Amino acid sequence: MLSYKAPLRDMRFVREELLDFPGLYASLPGYEEFTPELINQVLGEAARFCEDVLAPLYRSGDEEGCTWTPEGVKTPAGFAEAYRKYVDGGWAALSSSQDDGGQGLPASVGLFLEDMMGTANWAWAMYPGLSHGAVRTLKTHGSAEEKATYLGKLVSGEWTGTMCLTESHCGSDLGQLRTRAEPRADGSYAITGTKIFISSGDHDLAENIIHIVLARLPDAPPGTKGISLFLVPKKLPQPDGTLLANTLACGAIEHKMGINGSATCVMNFDGATGFIIGEPNRGLHHMFTFMNAARLGTAMQGLAACELSWQGARDYAFERLQGRSLAGAKNPSGPADPLIVHPNIRKLLLTQRAFAEGSRAFLYWLCRQVDTMDRSPDAAARKQAEDLMALLTPVGKAFVTEVGYEAANLGMQVLGGHGYVRANGMEQIVRDTRIALLYEGTSAIQALDLLGRKVMGTGGALLKSYQEHIEAFCVAQDGREDMAAFVQALRATGARLEGLTWKIAESAMKNAEEADAAAFEYLMILGYLVLAHMWAWMARVAADALAAGSTETEFYAAKIETARFYFQRVLPRTESLAICVEAGGASITAIPQNHFAA
Amino acid sequence: MLSYKAPLRDMRFVREELLDFPGLYASLPGYEEFTPELINQVLGEAARFCEDVLAPLYRSGDEEGCTWTPEGVKTPAGFAEAYRKYVDGGWAALSSSQDDGGQGLPASVGLFLEDMMGTANWAWAMYPGLSHGAVRTLKTHGSAEEKATYLGKLVSGEWTGTMCLTESHCGSDLGQLRTRAEPRADGSYAITGTKIFISSGDHDLAENIIHIVLARLPDAPPGTKGISLFLVPKKLPQPDGTLLANTLACGAIEHKMGINGSATCVMNFDGATGFIIGEPNRGLHHMFTFMNAARLGTAMQGLAACELSWQGARDYAFERLQGRSLAGAKNPSGPADPLIVHPNIRKLLLTQRAFAEGSRAFLYWLCRQVDTMDRSPDAAARKQAEDLMALLTPVGKAFVTEVGYEAANLGMQVLGGHGYVRANGMEQIVRDTRIALLYEGTSAIQALDLLGRKVMGTGGALLKSYQEHIEAFCVAQDGREDMAAFVQALRATGARLEGLTWKIAESAMKNAEEADAAAFEYLMILGYLVLAHMWAWMARVAADALAAGSTETEFYAAKIETARFYFQRVLPRTESLAICVEAGGASITAIPQNHFAA
Repeated sequence: MLSYKAPLRDMRFVREELLDFPGLYASLPGYEEFTPELINQVLGEAARFCEDVLAPLYRSGDEEGCTWTPEGVKTPAGFAEAYRKYVDGGWAALSSSQDDGGQGLPASVGLFLEDMMGTANWAWAMYPGLSHGAVRTLKTHGSAEEKATYLGKLVSGEWTGTMCLTESHCGSDLGQLRTRAEPRADGSYAITGTKIFISSGDHDLAENIIHIVLARLPDAPPGTKGISLFLVPKKLPQPDGTLLANTLACGAIEHKMGINGSATCVMNFDGATGFIIGEPNRGLHHMFTFMNAARLGTAMQGLAACELSWQGARDYAFERLQGRSLAGAKNPSGPADPLIVHPNIRKLLLTQRAFAEGSRAFLYWLCRQVDTMDRSPDAAARKQAEDLMALLTPVGKAFVTEVGYEAANLGMQVLGGHGYVRANGMEQIVRDTRIALLYEGTSAIQALDLLGRKVMGTGGALLKSYQEHIEAFCVAQDGREDMAAFVQALRATGARLEGLTWKIAESAMKNAEEADAAAFEYLMILGYLVLAHMWAWMARVAADALAAGSTETEFYAAKIETARFYFQRVLPRTESLAICVEAGGASITAIPQNHFAA
Repeated sequence: MLSYKAPLRDMRFVREELLDFPGLYASLPGYEEFTPELINQVLGEAARFCEDVLAPLYRSGDEEGCTWTPEGVKTPAGFAEAYRKYVDGGWAALSSSQDDGGQGLPASVGLFLEDMMGTANWAWAMYPGLSHGAVRTLKTHGSAEEKATYLGKLVSGEWTGTMCLTESHCGSDLGQLRTRAEPRADGSYAITGTKIFISSGDHDLAENIIHIVLARLPDAPPGTKGISLFLVPKKLPQPDGTLLANTLACGAIEHKMGINGSATCVMNFDGATGFIIGEPNRGLHHMFTFMNAARLGTAMQGLAACELSWQGARDYAFERLQGRSLAGAKNPSGPADPLIVHPNIRKLLLTQRAFAEGSRAFLYWLCRQVDTMDRSPDAAARKQAEDLMALLTPVGKAFVTEVGYEAANLGMQVLGGHGYVRANGMEQIVRDTRIALLYEGTSAIQALDLLGRKVMGTGGALLKSYQEHIEAFCVAQDGREDMAAFVQALRATGARLEGLTWKIAESAMKNAEEADAAAFEYLMILGYLVLAHMWAWMARVAADALAAGSTETEFYAAKIETARFYFQRVLPRTESLAICVEAGGASITAIPQNHFAA
């Protein structure tokens, strides 16, 4: 039976020893008080909440799922109570600004909390997770009155938020959307249309739900330039403090492969009262604030899958006795050796571990950029953080969810047939995390964003800046015998990627489709490079700790061993991806459409 | 909504134009009458049965699942009726010998039928599927009396069969099994023990179920050399023709990730009456007959996943309008272009197609070996077929199910968020086919069988024989400009594999664990090579057909285009796998066990 234990030691390693969050907080105005002791205490309590309250609802939430009723959606038993504890414990408000009633901790700390909540129970964590985007959007683009009415309750968690983009005929292609917003004399709008795939669209965790809805004004131009953003509450706050039902409802919930505890709703807006957020026809632009945060949040789902499946598979591999080591019995007094003695099992586990700990380092490093963008007094530092985020958010979203799905599948594989049985919890990770490759933009959409907008669209500037970052790391390892192999592979992979970038740029000038044909492989290569950088860096920190006489020899040795495994048995995947990109897109693009039907 | 259409044209291409089954049947004693016309007629009718009777139960069977009751397991609505049609239509007996009451068609035709049934509804197809192994085992090792009593009813499908191997503490490691068989004075045995993961262990499709059970005699030596095989009927046939309940029962069914329509049973044998099959303590050896057939059957599940998900994704990509082609609008009068215009979507589809049609060619080619082994009067031909089967059955099982799972996931990806919704059927393919990587020996177990027993264990002889087969194909393309790139890549990949084989052999002599650390990658490289051979061969046949003036230009052109795609964008995966193998196993094997817990 799977049971989540927050990897507090590894999280502390990444925060304090690798990424120097203590130094970062000390340098950011308003964050100086957040000492490592305080942060460790907060996250230690958060870990207990996740382990004791959320993890026990992981299996039961999946089995029971959500239920649609005419009165609204019912969440699985225990979900509402856990949510109450979350709000009462102040967790919802943890990283919101004190001006808005929050506790004012850094955004990164909120994300570390999301990591743990999501790993303990992703389906549950989606309810509060979506509210953050609504808060960010309102805070950035909302009117003073909108903020006064809605922000505080969203920050406290008393109310929750959604984002309503998708319609049945359009997902990635939002230009086609049809939901209408008719202006009314009082300055409000009548919103009419049907949205699908609305996570947390209805539920019984909170008194009110604030929908952030994309819709078209009557005079809007066609396509993406005619989309505006609206705030549409489930219940309208009245001057006397009471709430009046709006004309909207959840018409149905989807029956899905996984995340069954999360309500995925069809939302019918029937002339519902809404309020415009920001400028007319600038909705998609305003939504981007929301979407970058949502992508980082979704990347966390990949990390969650890596971590939970690694924990489950590792524990099983120590307990399950099956077969004998080819190098001689390791458990001679028992009926068989534990699975962990078998190289093929170790390979699965090491791949999971490399993805789990490597992705944590990568995403926490992105969290560092978020804090820097939020608070650094240094404009150049903010700009650099922004550039790194722009380049690497699509990589975090697509790459980490792809390897998260792989890790979850490897974890099932360790359990053999027992991995396929629902009660053991491992197959649920696969089902739950499968959605992460689809929502918030599929992996292919992220790849196009990376290659088209972020790499080609900046003339390679963002990529160059990131590669300089890696090169600086390489230079800093000069004279370190133990780091030589890592540095060499980092430089070789970086050079390979640069060569591909030029090649794609050249061919895309002749045929724009070449970029799309190369984009996914390109993104994956960059993802493997990022993780290689993280693993080399972790190996360096671990080697230094051992050299300094640390007694945690197993912990640090495992870091160096996992880094070596990653470089020898995972990073080489980039070579095949590169060969595929080099082949060009003709074998894909030149086929007449009707041949696909032949 | 997914609806299976049997790809009769492609199946005919593979059977008649690629693999010359008509020539094979004409050369095998007793098969001369099976003309292409007759086979096409039989398979055409089979296709209608699969499309009209089995496919409509695909979704409903998953939603309803099986139900345990004290009276026995209930299968989903419609399953029993479909099974009755299957038996009444003579499909169960199709490829069994006429001596046993079968229709005497070649084993290959039975496998083509299994392909279609499994693609239409894998969960349903498991009920009849398991009977074939029981028939084969009984026929080869059963006594005259056992055959007289059980064979006819198993062949007709009136009764079904199971294989009872796994116990809760042992799956791959059968040496640990504990189920006991106590001899009785009348020559029968009292079987006592609990088996788990027994597919079709109980159900309401047939009047009786014949369990083939592994158990230990009282004086049996420990480990795998003390296992015997028993026939244990659910109901014991009495001299008067009635059936008497045996002392065994299904204690529970598993709740699983998928194949919910297939009952996976915990079977309790409580001094149940059984009869020994073959010699005492030779049970595992006798079971191998069963297991090779079962592995080829499981490989078919990979093919089924490729085909069904390719059909679903392709249809969706033609219908769904989303975005505009980067090369200019292709559907200017519509609100958007169909998905099929986008290179990233085409890449997913082409990968699915390459795996579907390539795996069909590969597995049908294995079916050809089965027929040859069964019937060829030429001892050398039989030996060659046996060798090819020995080498490539584990590859078929592991590689085709791995790429089947990939194809199913790519199919979901084409549908975006809609792929995650159960009603659309695409996520069910992923859930259903996931088990194929686990049962009948995990992919890692197959890889060890391949590398340890089949390659190293024969001193490379089996591999050499297969490589000569590919080389003969390459030589036959001499002077063909259009085949040059394919031939070059085939030879390069073959040489790479050979080099790895020597390298692994050398390092495994020093450390046996090196083979296990390399085995999975090695198997995958061989799998990609086999598919490359199939695709080059298909391209050759297609080019010849076009040169000969065929009017099916789209069909044949698509074959050549898919071959080109496979060689340019899929086969290069072997390079990364090879680099990983070359790195050796030290980064996996040298890590102290306790570091995994650190």
